[in-house]
Amino acid sequence: MAATSDRTVYRATTTAPVNIAVIKYWGKRDATLNLPTNSSLSVTLSQRSLRTLTTASCSAIYPAADELILNGKPQDIQSSKRTLACLSNLRSLRQALENADPSLPKLSTLPLRIVSENNFPTAAGLASSAAGFAALVRAIADLYQLPQSPLELSRIARQGSGSACRSLMGGYVAWRAGEREDGSDSLAEEVAPASHWPEMRAIILVVSAEKKDVPSTEGMQTTVATSSLFATRAASVVPARMAAIEAAIQNKDFPSFAEITMRDSNSFHATCLDSWPPIFYMNDVSRAAVRLVHDINRAVGQTVCAYTFDAGPNAVIYYLEKDSELVAGTVKAILGSNTEGFDGPFYDILKSVTASGVPLDKIDSRVVEVLKNGISRVILTGVGEGPISVEDHLVSATGDILSS
Amino acid sequence: MAATSDRTVYRATTTAPVNIAVIKYWGKRDATLNLPTNSSLSVTLSQRSLRTLTTASCSAIYPAADELILNGKPQDIQSSKRTLACLSNLRSLRQALENADPSLPKLSTLPLRIVSENNFPTAAGLASSAAGFAALVRAIADLYQLPQSPLELSRIARQGSGSACRSLMGGYVAWRAGEREDGSDSLAEEVAPASHWPEMRAIILVVSAEKKDVPSTEGMQTTVATSSLFATRAASVVPARMAAIEAAIQNKDFPSFAEITMRDSNSFHATCLDSWPPIFYMNDVSRAAVRLVHDINRAVGQTVCAYTFDAGPNAVIYYLEKDSELVAGTVKAILGSNTEGFDGPFYDILKSVTASGVPLDKIDSRVVEVLKNGISRVILTGVGEGPISVEDHLVSATGDILSS
Repeated sequence: MAATSDRTVYRATTTAPVNIAVIKYWGKRDATLNLPTNSSLSVTLSQRSLRTLTTASCSAIYPAADELILNGKPQDIQSSKRTLACLSNLRSLRQALENADPSLPKLSTLPLRIVSENNFPTAAGLASSAAGFAALVRAIADLYQLPQSPLELSRIARQGSGSACRSLMGGYVAWRAGEREDGSDSLAEEVAPASHWPEMRAIILVVSAEKKDVPSTEGMQTTVATSSLFATRAASVVPARMAAIEAAIQNKDFPSFAEITMRDSNSFHATCLDSWPPIFYMNDVSRAAVRLVHDINRAVGQTVCAYTFDAGPNAVIYYLEKDSELVAGTVKAILGSNTEGFDGPFYDILKSVTASGVPLDKIDSRVVEVLKNGISRVILTGVGEGPISVEDHLVSATGDILSS
Repeated sequence: MAATSDRTVYRATTTAPVNIAVIKYWGKRDATLNLPTNSSLSVTLSQRSLRTLTTASCSAIYPAADELILNGKPQDIQSSKRTLACLSNLRSLRQALENADPSLPKLSTLPLRIVSENNFPTAAGLASSAAGFAALVRAIADLYQLPQSPLELSRIARQGSGSACRSLMGGYVAWRAGEREDGSDSLAEEVAPASHWPEMRAIILVVSAEKKDVPSTEGMQTTVATSSLFATRAASVVPARMAAIEAAIQNKDFPSFAEITMRDSNSFHATCLDSWPPIFYMNDVSRAAVRLVHDINRAVGQTVCAYTFDAGPNAVIYYLEKDSELVAGTVKAILGSNTEGFDGPFYDILKSVTASGVPLDKIDSRVVEVLKNGISRVILTGVGEGPISVEDHLVSATGDILSS
């Protein structure tokens, strides 16, 4: 029977997580291959809070051109070199399997239909590309039954979106910059599984839309090309921090983990400010979150929380579960329970908390006011697992697009 | 006649200017001698806008302890090592003169009474220490009729307040970091007099008190001790910029002067952010001013203005007189003429301006709103002269304290 008359719909579905870097990726040494100027390290966040769900399917009944539907909207794959690179790499790996074992169905020759949905709150302003490309690569690799390890697949996901390579694994994940020109050694690897240090928690403070910064010119390449401080960061600051934070993770040393995390976030934003023209991601609300963390740590007398900021004003605050009341409890006391997001699986421990973890008179009063007016929602989460294979397919057995 | 029975009151009065650095002084290599980690360069601002007026007097009729009255308030000189260092250095120079010429009155043995007043608007939030120590040193040097040049006196003023050494001269002034441990080569010198490039103008945007930033930890020594990017700035970034901006000043090349000024301000604030704990001086209003300057330059199609920020949120925007309408006219159109400070000697050129220099639809609308709500006053000024000897004494011929 010719492939064209076979009406089989092959499917595989996966969820993939968001990751938030503690050592920041900023700057590419090769923009086509997404090779970074420095290594980075992230915490994979629990898919009980945030996840992308992706079904990869292929069938002879599909139109000839590969299809990608994100949150219900068909995407123009042909205009996305990054997506094309991922698909082409994965097809080649499948083809190699098929060449080695002629009994396998020729999936590499069939059109793909990929359907993906995020469960992120629309207003969260979270970059979804990392989870999205990780899910896409993992789902197709499952569809194709590829034997490659997550480490090997990270080389492909990286080409979709740099930080996506870190979402292929759970726990604490390093992306080694590598040295080779072809990027073959620029891979993500698990530094420690979530089970090694499962107590890590994160609360994401989402800055209200109307409090967003004045628009900033985008672009890490601006920093690489223009910042006179960036080379020092890439060449010496980050390598030292990578070694130190990996040791902190191995030793479950939260104060060290926290200080390195905060300093690296500051260093990253410093090189943005040093770019020309300057790039600003943090705003007054972000800075109030910085101050909140320092005030909580000072009030407690030890480092129980750490902030980090990506390319936007939202704060991610890491803490350990045992300090939930001190950290998330204080945030809740400041924001009030009317703020969206005080719910979900990570809220249980806070349900019974009524007083502020740290007395609010230990927090600068202007910080309290700026946060109260500037934060519209929180997301409670924690360290979690890598992509998970599931049966909630977004494509029916007959090839129809479903909704989750 | 013994000195104690002589009722003569010796007096000298001077005004001294504020200066605003375009290459920033940040970090000391010796905190006692105020020796900087890097050279810096400033524009001396006109005393027609901002000045300190200081009378130095000495007399046998005064109480034995030196006195200093600032803005009507007696200061505790004994607790200010910096003031004591200045007085002691100046007395030594006077004593050397008296030793060489016994006919001179023994002023070095007489108690001092120093009275000083700033004309700065109280709400301006301008650091007055530079003008203050420059006036103090200049007034006492005049009182003592010291032959030392401003360059030689800058060594003394520097010990009062680092940036004070640059307020002893007019125009464009470099403070050479120097190399010697005793600081004898850490001196300010005029790179070009005001008359070389008299068209330089500045508008200071004073951020409203209620829009002031969340408090930040102070301290340049924090940056030196903790920023992993600071050493690169001090060792290589600033030296290259010093050479480049001096050439720009000699060539009256405003676009180069402007870009270096903006980049150095950003670099300085980047190292503050990279400090531990991080130091923030710029806030959302400051960042709106940054964006305003970039938007004006983009709309005009060339660089006609440049921002710089000291250790606070206020913006100083440099521009040339010929571009007053484009730059200050746009600021006026945004802030409205109700904002304080659209007056004084530098306002004449703007009086007849009714429309915005740059159409307001070329400026980001959020920038316009943030500035309108966040700036309480402006100060219009320009490049000016160094200290000027005047006869408006703040001490009467009989030693009484006067008010200006």
